[in-house]
Amino acid sequence: MKKIVIVGGVAGGASAATRARRLDESAEIVLIERGPDISFANCGMPYYIGGEITNRDKMLVAKPELLRNRFNIDVRVRTEVTSIDRTAKTVQLHNLLTGKESSESYDYLILSPGASPIRPPLPGVDLPGIHVLRNLGDMDQIRSKLDQGATHATIVGAGFIGLEVAESLTHHGTKVTVVELQSQVLPPLDSELANPIAQELLAHGVELILSDSVARFDSAGSRLKVTLASGKAIETDLVLLGVGVRPDNGLAVQAGLEVGPRGGIKTNSQMQTSDPFIYAVGDAVETFDFVTHEPTQVPLAGPANRQGRIAADNVMGIKSSYRGTQGTAIVRVFSKVAALTGQSEKNLVRAKKPFRKIYVHPAHHAGYYPGAEQMTLKVLFREEDGRVLGAQAVGGAGVDKRIDVLAMAIQAKMTVFDLEEAELCYAPPFGSAKDPVNMAGFVAANLLQGVHPQQLAEKYLAPAEHEEIIVDVRTPKEFDEGHIAGAVNIPVDELRKRLSELDPKRPVTVYCQVGQRGYIATRILLQHGYRVANISGGYKTYGLHLGKM
Amino acid sequence: MKKIVIVGGVAGGASAATRARRLDESAEIVLIERGPDISFANCGMPYYIGGEITNRDKMLVAKPELLRNRFNIDVRVRTEVTSIDRTAKTVQLHNLLTGKESSESYDYLILSPGASPIRPPLPGVDLPGIHVLRNLGDMDQIRSKLDQGATHATIVGAGFIGLEVAESLTHHGTKVTVVELQSQVLPPLDSELANPIAQELLAHGVELILSDSVARFDSAGSRLKVTLASGKAIETDLVLLGVGVRPDNGLAVQAGLEVGPRGGIKTNSQMQTSDPFIYAVGDAVETFDFVTHEPTQVPLAGPANRQGRIAADNVMGIKSSYRGTQGTAIVRVFSKVAALTGQSEKNLVRAKKPFRKIYVHPAHHAGYYPGAEQMTLKVLFREEDGRVLGAQAVGGAGVDKRIDVLAMAIQAKMTVFDLEEAELCYAPPFGSAKDPVNMAGFVAANLLQGVHPQQLAEKYLAPAEHEEIIVDVRTPKEFDEGHIAGAVNIPVDELRKRLSELDPKRPVTVYCQVGQRGYIATRILLQHGYRVANISGGYKTYGLHLGKM
Repeated sequence: MKKIVIVGGVAGGASAATRARRLDESAEIVLIERGPDISFANCGMPYYIGGEITNRDKMLVAKPELLRNRFNIDVRVRTEVTSIDRTAKTVQLHNLLTGKESSESYDYLILSPGASPIRPPLPGVDLPGIHVLRNLGDMDQIRSKLDQGATHATIVGAGFIGLEVAESLTHHGTKVTVVELQSQVLPPLDSELANPIAQELLAHGVELILSDSVARFDSAGSRLKVTLASGKAIETDLVLLGVGVRPDNGLAVQAGLEVGPRGGIKTNSQMQTSDPFIYAVGDAVETFDFVTHEPTQVPLAGPANRQGRIAADNVMGIKSSYRGTQGTAIVRVFSKVAALTGQSEKNLVRAKKPFRKIYVHPAHHAGYYPGAEQMTLKVLFREEDGRVLGAQAVGGAGVDKRIDVLAMAIQAKMTVFDLEEAELCYAPPFGSAKDPVNMAGFVAANLLQGVHPQQLAEKYLAPAEHEEIIVDVRTPKEFDEGHIAGAVNIPVDELRKRLSELDPKRPVTVYCQVGQRGYIATRILLQHGYRVANISGGYKTYGLHLGKM
Repeated sequence: MKKIVIVGGVAGGASAATRARRLDESAEIVLIERGPDISFANCGMPYYIGGEITNRDKMLVAKPELLRNRFNIDVRVRTEVTSIDRTAKTVQLHNLLTGKESSESYDYLILSPGASPIRPPLPGVDLPGIHVLRNLGDMDQIRSKLDQGATHATIVGAGFIGLEVAESLTHHGTKVTVVELQSQVLPPLDSELANPIAQELLAHGVELILSDSVARFDSAGSRLKVTLASGKAIETDLVLLGVGVRPDNGLAVQAGLEVGPRGGIKTNSQMQTSDPFIYAVGDAVETFDFVTHEPTQVPLAGPANRQGRIAADNVMGIKSSYRGTQGTAIVRVFSKVAALTGQSEKNLVRAKKPFRKIYVHPAHHAGYYPGAEQMTLKVLFREEDGRVLGAQAVGGAGVDKRIDVLAMAIQAKMTVFDLEEAELCYAPPFGSAKDPVNMAGFVAANLLQGVHPQQLAEKYLAPAEHEEIIVDVRTPKEFDEGHIAGAVNIPVDELRKRLSELDPKRPVTVYCQVGQRGYIATRILLQHGYRVANISGGYKTYGLHLGKM
C-alpha cells in the first residue's frame, strides 16, 4: 500500500490527489494545505472583487469534505509542511491553528506549493492597504476595502491579472490607475498587439502610466500616497501589487532539491524532481517550453492541472510525460480580448531564433452577417519548413477560438501550409468560408513560396529617406485620411494603367489597409519586373505599431 | 500565354479565377456564369429572407466589376456553357440575354458548376409557391412572398439550410412547419446529438413532423395544400424544398468526363478530371473523405474555395493537393448550436469501421463564472491507437470553438492522448483549466487504457431484464427526479461503506448525471473486484438518446 503526501491543495495538488485516488483505491493519500481552502477558483478572484461573481461559495471548486467523502483523502488545511527528511522519507507538519507539530511518512511526495506574488522591497511596501492577490483571504480584504468605500485603486503591473482587476474595479465604479514598468501593457504579448488593449483601458477611463515604476509608498491620512520613479504621485485607497510571482521553493531548497536559476523546482518530463521519490507540479516548477525546449516557468492553471495528473500517473506506475508548456493565455479587457500561444516575437528575438511573421486583420465571422468584429492575428513561423512557432490575436469575439485552433497547430507541429488546409466551422454567425486561420495560412504560405514578398511596417514608423518608392494602393479617400509619410497613391484598380509612373529601377513597397489589395498590387508589379514587397497587414499593422487604432 | 476558361462564378470558380490572376498576370482568364451574380453569399440567404441581413447589396461579395477592374478577368454573366469540345479545346457559349451563340477556346478549363437543389418528382411540385434556395433570385422570390403577407411556410427537409430558414422565418413572424423523412433533424448528425435541436425548434413554436414525407402538392385557393405520406395535410403559403442537392454534371457528362455513382465529377487530388486539361471544383465534384479516404460529395463553401485555389495552382504549375473533405459543419438554431467534423457514428457503422466513442457534458467556460452553458461533446476514435475519427457537439456558446479545435486534431491525425495534453485558452469568460476538449481526452484515454470501462446508454433505453446490477450513484434527490428503470441508488460518497449491498457475482453498470461520479464509482468497484462499467456521459446521455433533455 502506497502512501502519498501532497503539499499544496490547489490546482496541481488537488488534481494529483484525486487522480491518485482514482488509480489506487488502497493508497493512503494525505493532502496538506497551508491555507483554509483547497482547490479554489484563483482565476475567478478578479471577477468576485468587481461583483460579477456574486456567490463566494462558487469560488470553492472542491471543498475539503468532498475530497474526504468522495475521494477518501486525508485533507489537512491550515497545516504547513516545515521540512522534508528525504532519508527518513518524512515531512514535518505544523498545524497553524493549534500550533501542534507532527510528522508524516511518505512513499512518494508531491510538491505543489505554488508561487508567491512578489512584494518588491520598496519603502512602505508593508503598509496596510497594499495588497497582493493570491488566495481568497487576499480577495476578501480587497473586496472589503471596496465595501468600505474605496474610490480609487492603483494597480502596479499591467499583466493579465492586473488588467482583469482593473476591468473589474472599473465595472464596480472604482477609479483605477495602472502603473507598468514596461512601455506596453501585457508584457508577454508583442507590443503592437498589446496597444489596442491599452487604448481600450483608456477608453474606459482607466489611467495608464507606462514606462514608470513605484519608488515608495507612504500613508496619507486614511489613504496611501504612491510616488513613482518619475516623481509623479498618486493618492489612492488601495494598491494591488501584480508584478509577478516567485516559486514557493523554500521547502524544496531546504531539502536540497535542484532548482533552476529563476527559482523553479527542477523536474524531468515525468514531473519528478532530483529526488526520485519527490515530484513537483504547478507554479513552483521549472518546466520546459513546448516549442523551444528551453527551461521556462509559466504560472498557468491548465498546465498545473495536467502536471498534477501526470505526477499521480507516474507515482502509480502509469508512464506519463509532460510535453512542455506552450504558454497559451487569454485576457478579456472590457470589450477587447487578447490571447497568445507559443513563442512571441520578442522571445524569438531574445533567443536569437530565426522566424518569419505575418499579420491579417479579418472579421471574426462573415462580413455580410451583422456584428462582424475585426481581429488582428499575428502568426510566427519557421522559414525552412513553415512550422508554426507562435500566434497572437487581439480583437473581440472569436479571438479565443482562433488562438485555440493555432494552439492545436503548434501542439501538432503543423505548418502554415497546414493552416491553409484547415477545415473549420462555417456558417455566417460563426466564421467565414476562408477562416482567419486559413487567411493567415494563405499569406504565410505565399510568403514562403516566394509568391508574396513582404516588407515590415516597422521600417516606416519614423520618417526617413528610403531607396524604395512607397505606393499606397488604397482609394484616394483612404489615402487622404492618413498614410505613410512619403507614399504616393495609386489605387490597385488603376495600377496596370499607371505603371509608367513607377521608376522600374527603384524598388517598390506597396501597402493597402489590411494587406489584400497590396498583395494583388505586389503580384502585378512583380510580374512586370519590379522589385516589390507588400507591407504585411497593411496600414492597419502600421497603425498598431504606432499605437493608433 | 495561358488561356483559362472557368465555368461558374461562385465560391470555387471565383476563387480559382482570382488565384489564377494573382499567379499569372499575363494569362487570359474568362469567367462564365449562367446567373446574374458571381461570388454571392449563398450561406447568408436564410438570414436575408428573415430580415437579419437587411442590405441586399452585402450579399454580393464580389461584383463582376471588381473582378474586371482589380483582377483583369473577362467576366460574362447570364451566359451558359452549352458544350465542351475536348479535342478542339473549345467551349460553346449561349448568351441568355441576347440568345447569341459563340465559342471560346481554352488551354485549361475549370468547371465549377455547383449543384442543383433536388425537386422530387411529386405531383404538383412545379406549382407556383414551391421554392428552392440556390441563388439570389430564389431568395428574392421567397422574400417577396413574405412581403406579400405569407403567414405559414412549409420546409421540406430538416437539413442545415432548412433549419436556418426555419429559424429565420420564425424570427420574421412566419409560422413554420418542417417535414423530414428521417426520424431526426440534421441527418448528418447522430440522432442523440440532433435531439436537442429538435426540442429547440419545438420550444420556438416550429411544427416538426419527422418520419414523414410529402406525397403531393395541390393548389388551395391562393394557398398550397401539402399532403404527406401519412395522410396529414398542411395548408401553407410557401414551400421550400431542402431535400438535398445534385451535382450539375450535365456539361461534364456530355463531354465524356468520368463521374461517380452519385453524379459528382471525378477528380484526382489536384482537382484534375479524367481530362488533364479540365479541372473541376466545388459542389459538383466527387472528392474523398479526409478520414476514410472513401469517395464523398459534400457541398460546403470552405472546401469549394480551397479546391478553386488548388485547381488554379496546378493550372499555373504550382503543385498543390487537396487533402480530402472532413465535413466540418455548423448550424445555429435559435439559441442552440450543433456542429460536427470528421466521421459520424452512423457513417462508421454504415462503413463497418470499428470505433469507440465517449460523451462529456461540460460547461463552455468556468462554472463559477456567470453564464456558463452546458454542451454535449461526443468524440469518436480508433481503439488501436486512439486516433480521433470524428466529433460532434450540441449546446450554445463555445460549441464552434471545440469543434474547430477537434477539426484541427483530425487534420493533424492526433489521438485522444493528444487531446489530454491540449493547452487551450483559459480565463473564466472563455474556458476552464480543463477544457471540454481535455475532458474528452481524459475520458477517452482512460477508456483505452483500461482504467475506465464503459457501458453505452443505448443498452438501457427500453426496459429489459439485465444480468448486471444498475447502480445510480447520484443523490437520492436526483434519483427521485428520474432514473433508469431497474436502477438502485447508492450515492458515490456512500459507496465504499455500502459495498455489501452489491452482489460481487453480478456485473455492475453505474451511472451518474454526466459521467464523472460514475467514473469514480467505477474505479472504487473495479478495485474491489467487481466487473463494472460506467455509462458514458451518464443520465444526460441517456436522456439525449431518449430525446428528453
